[in-house]
Amino acid sequence: MGTRQSRSARVVFAARLRELREKRGFSQEGLAELADLHRTYVGSVERGERNISIDNMERLARALDVQLKEML
Amino acid sequence: MGTRQSRSARVVFAARLRELREKRGFSQEGLAELADLHRTYVGSVERGERNISIDNMERLARALDVQLKEML
Repeated sequence: MGTRQSRSARVVFAARLRELREKRGFSQEGLAELADLHRTYVGSVERGERNISIDNMERLARALDVQLKEML
Repeated sequence: MGTRQSRSARVVFAARLRELREKRGFSQEGLAELADLHRTYVGSVERGERNISIDNMERLARALDVQLKEML
């Protein structure tokens, strides 16, 4: 239940991704390698340009050692 | 931080989707209409067959009146 988010999930995820990546001291390239994704893909997700899938969201969450729900 | 999920995000989301849909008393068809998605698509997401995108996850969460993170 509870209040709906006003910002879109995509925008929230993008901001959390950048925040957590920087907190870990990872470059986009380093995170991409850890998550087995392309570097330019990670950049476009951080800019909210990609309608990322749940499987790729999970790969990023695992690479950042957080639960996916903490990124939303 | 915290413990990683053992079940995949896709499987967790599928189970939560079904649980919340049934709790609301919606059919797959009714939920699909509310979320402006196809009925067969909702069924395949509930079976964990689809690598659903964040935009469609959000549509389902809104139709169910929950925050997306509550579905993960």
